[in-house]
Amino acid sequence: MAKDPNTIYVGNKPPMNYVMAVITGFNMSDAEEVTLKARGRAISTAVDVAEIVRNRFFKDAKVHSISIGTEEITPREGGNPRNVSTMEINLRK
Amino acid sequence: MAKDPNTIYVGNKPPMNYVMAVITGFNMSDAEEVTLKARGRAISTAVDVAEIVRNRFFKDAKVHSISIGTEEITPREGGNPRNVSTMEINLRK
Repeated sequence: MAKDPNTIYVGNKPPMNYVMAVITGFNMSDAEEVTLKARGRAISTAVDVAEIVRNRFFKDAKVHSISIGTEEITPREGGNPRNVSTMEINLRK
Repeated sequence: MAKDPNTIYVGNKPPMNYVMAVITGFNMSDAEEVTLKARGRAISTAVDVAEIVRNRFFKDAKVHSISIGTEEITPREGGNPRNVSTMEINLRK
């Protein structure tokens, strides 16, 4: 995965961890945009993160675009590949 | 909640229940669009539903728009209101 500080991969940690990452992303090099990426159950967390950022920290930030998709995941322990939903939320201030 | 057959409220049931509702919505009165609404953890399920519909059932269906928001929920048993994230996915064919 890319080390772009303006792309934040949302996983199973509490939302505030990712909120801090978004704030850092916006402040670093005065970035105008930050993208949240999430898969599966973490999609709800990504929406929470975007909403917390917009409502509490960067009130001028806007949701510029949201896209959804599907990725095929092959389990590490073998077995059939299965589909998992993905989401990207692009925030701009 | 409105009884509009083209608005589907996604909750905690398995995704295929809602996929069936979307298919019914598209077929009833030859509707051109169906909107999925979800809150909290069900947001991930709503994305799964949209992806399953697009990939397996209506390959010509497009995600027309996705919006996110926040609602304040007051617990029925009392206590402090808390915020919950919401999402709407508008599908068109």
